[in-house]
Amino acid sequence: MLPSRVTLVDVGPRDGLQNEKQPVAAEHKIELVHRLQSAGLREIEVTSFVSPKWVPQMADNAQVMAGLRRRAGVRYSVLVPNLKGLEAALQPARDGWPDEVVVFGAASEAFSQKNINCSIAESIERFAPVVAAAREAGIKVRGAISCALACPYEGEVSPDRVEQVVRLMQGIGVQHVGVADTIGVGTPRRVQAAMERALKHYPLAEVSGHFHDTYGQALANIYACLELGVHCFDASVAGLGGCPYAKGATGNVATEDVVFLLHGLGIETGIDLDALVDTAAFVSGVLGRKPVSCVANAVLAKRGVPA
Amino acid sequence: MLPSRVTLVDVGPRDGLQNEKQPVAAEHKIELVHRLQSAGLREIEVTSFVSPKWVPQMADNAQVMAGLRRRAGVRYSVLVPNLKGLEAALQPARDGWPDEVVVFGAASEAFSQKNINCSIAESIERFAPVVAAAREAGIKVRGAISCALACPYEGEVSPDRVEQVVRLMQGIGVQHVGVADTIGVGTPRRVQAAMERALKHYPLAEVSGHFHDTYGQALANIYACLELGVHCFDASVAGLGGCPYAKGATGNVATEDVVFLLHGLGIETGIDLDALVDTAAFVSGVLGRKPVSCVANAVLAKRGVPA
Repeated sequence: MLPSRVTLVDVGPRDGLQNEKQPVAAEHKIELVHRLQSAGLREIEVTSFVSPKWVPQMADNAQVMAGLRRRAGVRYSVLVPNLKGLEAALQPARDGWPDEVVVFGAASEAFSQKNINCSIAESIERFAPVVAAAREAGIKVRGAISCALACPYEGEVSPDRVEQVVRLMQGIGVQHVGVADTIGVGTPRRVQAAMERALKHYPLAEVSGHFHDTYGQALANIYACLELGVHCFDASVAGLGGCPYAKGATGNVATEDVVFLLHGLGIETGIDLDALVDTAAFVSGVLGRKPVSCVANAVLAKRGVPA
Repeated sequence: MLPSRVTLVDVGPRDGLQNEKQPVAAEHKIELVHRLQSAGLREIEVTSFVSPKWVPQMADNAQVMAGLRRRAGVRYSVLVPNLKGLEAALQPARDGWPDEVVVFGAASEAFSQKNINCSIAESIERFAPVVAAAREAGIKVRGAISCALACPYEGEVSPDRVEQVVRLMQGIGVQHVGVADTIGVGTPRRVQAAMERALKHYPLAEVSGHFHDTYGQALANIYACLELGVHCFDASVAGLGGCPYAKGATGNVATEDVVFLLHGLGIETGIDLDALVDTAAFVSGVLGRKPVSCVANAVLAKRGVPA
């Protein structure tokens, strides 16, 4: 039995746009969020509160959050790397806060060392005061587990490692875990094995999948997760966000492609695919390139839009 | 239980190249087949014996077949539209014959009428003498059922229609049926429903799937077929063969992407993925464009080949 309804979190405005060489104007980011919510997205990862020294693309985080025309029933999340980031996210008056913050850790020791210069356990321990402060403020905390299938430095990552991170995150009070195949090399059975470790510690409603289409496997992996009952996935409109570990390669799975799969399976998403394709066309126009989405390109071709 | 071994039929040289505007030289087609067999492909759809008036891209069919350096254990197939095509394919001495011929029919009445100007039943009845003559000559006959999930003219196609074509094909002696999602809109459960109708009449070993990645669903559909035990699929190196019904859109699923899925699931294919990616790079070079394959592009990017 597949789930009857699935929630998609569009991570395009944050995860997608953070790798763009040309900065995208705050007004375009805001319009992107507005278009996503009009298309029916109910969870949107808007920006990150990371030092502009590291991620200049998100330096306009406060401006974007302040510019949102919030819609009832939509959850806006932001990524925070530390307490300073959380404090910045909670700087404005309460109605400018995110509904949710995302913290993160890698399931690969090598990745953790190279990327954030500390062990997995240390990296998650450092988030403990962030999680406590966010929950104190009434904000939900989601934990993203990167390299949950494999790592660019050490290759395959075992489900044991995923479970270790899941338990560490649970230990500091993280309320939802996302299992992320950062380099996109996972295939269905290995993805199920990783997911099952998260499901040992979190209920179905609090586990999500985050897949990259670098090797074209994302939809097969999502289908395999649906078979486990998982009903929350990240995706990125227009496939925004190339894979930084393989230049020219595809990154985040496109939200349009996931919606097509889900609707074809008779699963409700609340999303209007045509409006979502319009949104993909909008942001692709801003970036001056074609969407990285089979569905968007097929639908636009059918409408007679030149490639 | 997934199958432990899967056979892939590379249809790139025929189904892939038949839509190219610029004709590809016979020597390049021959090299493509040679590279595919060196990479481990054991079934290759080489060309078609269709009137050059309709498909000028395959006018060199006899030259290509005559130029093959045949390898033991490899099956070479050709598409034939009628008795005249079969006779042409069997024109040379026996060692120049194909091992298999492919006949075809649509599961959509509208498509059949528009494409071949007769009803489904008539179109298959017309193949009866072709099948008889091929089998008489000791050549295996495969039947391709196009529009098995949907039709560009009439939309969704029901599994009943697929079963009707399967039975008609069985009635004229077709030994293997391929269920083809010509416009790529199928999703896993609907694909399984269509496949199950073929499996009511043919054994597992004589049913295959042919999927297009137009909407990105091909690998999810193949995974769903594997769950039924289906262990034979068509695929096209470098994703050769755009979708004629949606300009600019992706067509045949790339063999490389399917191999990555299968190997990730621990399923043997006998195919060397690196050599296959080399083959994709070769034919893409001939065509002057990038492969339409996530895996080929990711592997080439990793190797440092400029996009």
